[in-house]
Amino acid sequence: MTDGLKLNIVPFVSVDSMMKIVMGIGVERFLVDLAAYVEEDFRRWESFDKTPRIPSHSDDGVIELMPTSDGVLYGFKYVNGHPKNTRTGRQTVTAFGVLADMASGYPVLFTEMTILTALRTAATSAVAARHLAPRNARTMAIIGNGAQSEFQALAFKALLGVNRLRLYDIDPVATEKCARNLAGRGFEIIKAKSVEEAVEGAEIITTVTADKRNATILSDNLVGEGVHINAVGGDCPGKTELHRDILLRSKIFVEYPPQTRIEGEIQQLEPDHAVTELWQVMTGQVAGRESERQVTLFDSVGFAIEDFSALRFLRDQLEAFPFYEEIDLLADPDEPRDLFGMLLRSQK
Amino acid sequence: MTDGLKLNIVPFVSVDSMMKIVMGIGVERFLVDLAAYVEEDFRRWESFDKTPRIPSHSDDGVIELMPTSDGVLYGFKYVNGHPKNTRTGRQTVTAFGVLADMASGYPVLFTEMTILTALRTAATSAVAARHLAPRNARTMAIIGNGAQSEFQALAFKALLGVNRLRLYDIDPVATEKCARNLAGRGFEIIKAKSVEEAVEGAEIITTVTADKRNATILSDNLVGEGVHINAVGGDCPGKTELHRDILLRSKIFVEYPPQTRIEGEIQQLEPDHAVTELWQVMTGQVAGRESERQVTLFDSVGFAIEDFSALRFLRDQLEAFPFYEEIDLLADPDEPRDLFGMLLRSQK
Repeated sequence: MTDGLKLNIVPFVSVDSMMKIVMGIGVERFLVDLAAYVEEDFRRWESFDKTPRIPSHSDDGVIELMPTSDGVLYGFKYVNGHPKNTRTGRQTVTAFGVLADMASGYPVLFTEMTILTALRTAATSAVAARHLAPRNARTMAIIGNGAQSEFQALAFKALLGVNRLRLYDIDPVATEKCARNLAGRGFEIIKAKSVEEAVEGAEIITTVTADKRNATILSDNLVGEGVHINAVGGDCPGKTELHRDILLRSKIFVEYPPQTRIEGEIQQLEPDHAVTELWQVMTGQVAGRESERQVTLFDSVGFAIEDFSALRFLRDQLEAFPFYEEIDLLADPDEPRDLFGMLLRSQK
Repeated sequence: MTDGLKLNIVPFVSVDSMMKIVMGIGVERFLVDLAAYVEEDFRRWESFDKTPRIPSHSDDGVIELMPTSDGVLYGFKYVNGHPKNTRTGRQTVTAFGVLADMASGYPVLFTEMTILTALRTAATSAVAARHLAPRNARTMAIIGNGAQSEFQALAFKALLGVNRLRLYDIDPVATEKCARNLAGRGFEIIKAKSVEEAVEGAEIITTVTADKRNATILSDNLVGEGVHINAVGGDCPGKTELHRDILLRSKIFVEYPPQTRIEGEIQQLEPDHAVTELWQVMTGQVAGRESERQVTLFDSVGFAIEDFSALRFLRDQLEAFPFYEEIDLLADPDEPRDLFGMLLRSQK
């Protein structure tokens, strides 16, 4: 120990603690405040070390590491994607992450990120839509009513004022679950029986299915002029949701092109197809939506900087919402060169 | 939960637990048994996904992720290197790691790795020396008597029968500490006053200094015929310990050439200078030491597969040495698609 600091200790936010923090802050306020961190980090995009995620594939799925740094802090997320997991009662996607101090290399936060990722994905979608969706959009279709759907709905309500939802899922049980979870939260909810019915009158279309193929969740004829498409579900090679023709008539916005070209909807297009980087819209360097009739598309795959924002945001909440354990993660010998002596003395 | 399994729980081995496990097994037995796992994984080198470590640099140091997988298990280590940390009572190097199941993507072990890395580095050095050092070597010089030195000494004793140590450090306090920690463990110990004195009569020379420059810890004239050099300290760009002439007259063995060419002693050589991959010696595909007079050099930088072996070994000890906590790391809703419902119900 030095100066009474416990240098060996790292705060750990468990799943249970995360739920306490989110409910303590309130889901909508959490999303709004987190969105501010996401937007702040997008605005200083150029100050980050960026790399496509580092995957390890197997027949059953993928495990990925997503690191990034702004030179002061370092963050990474571990995330898996295993579609068959639901058969054994496991989550398709789970995640955890670490925030660390670049000056010392010491971790400053270790946290579950399954819940946190759902929140940051929704916050990022809403931040993008605030720059891209038609003005005063109030109606959103959500195609795919699984684990991410309620978070998307609440983020769009809290950040854009969306208050009419048109839900559709191939499994009506999922739609029922989503509608039930969102009841009493200020939405007018339509449970649609088809994609066609869901998109009727919607100014924003969110696709967030778990289909693992190159599927056509949304066909071209269903996308009217002026719509903003928030495409969240297509996020790995061989997994897309939109018909290619939609892409060809949309203005496409992405997080990090080298990653999105591999993982996003635009994997269906030529590698040099023009896309706009979202951060440049936020900084005002390039235009977002250019007309009321333009179809805008946020081809979201999730990037490490969004996780970094989420880690940074969470760390800043821990003083007011001290729900964490202190874990003994780092060896802390009295004399740094005497690791072995620490080991010997530990048993006395 | 499913079938009574707690799917959300991951065992966590803290620093304190790691010390209990190591002391419970005994340091030397731990090193011998761990070495068997390291050798087993080197022998099936080709079955691993391999990538050079993924670094994030700052002015003060580096944070690295080191992932690998054999298709069944996945492991990664987080490790930092911050030379100035000792000024604030922190470790120059700290580490933690995760082992995960490739079939589900779920972590199965989260552990401190500062102590574990010291053990795996020493075990790997001794495994290499068993294939490369002169037969019946009993005397080892250790140049650099810091945090790694005792582990090296004990690994060489346990795996090769080394029982004479010749210690040298530019700081005599470090040598005193090393000699004190190793007292009563069956070594004849010489505290040398110079590198020259240390290497006298040594059949194995281990260099494990923390010098952060391209230093010449060992000059060419000090290396006699037939010696095995175990070069552990040079492990990042701009940090080497051996004079280039030593490399030119040695047969050089490395872990993973793409990483060693950047980080190892061989960064001083042409990028196409011939090196031998250690795993091929272990499988018998290529020769190790070819004559009694040959100088052999293990240019060790530490590779992800060694951490994988260490994680795998540790996991297999937890049944007999159940020193771990169970941490609530993974969200586990009753219905995988109902993450939001889990959140809502958590506060009831």
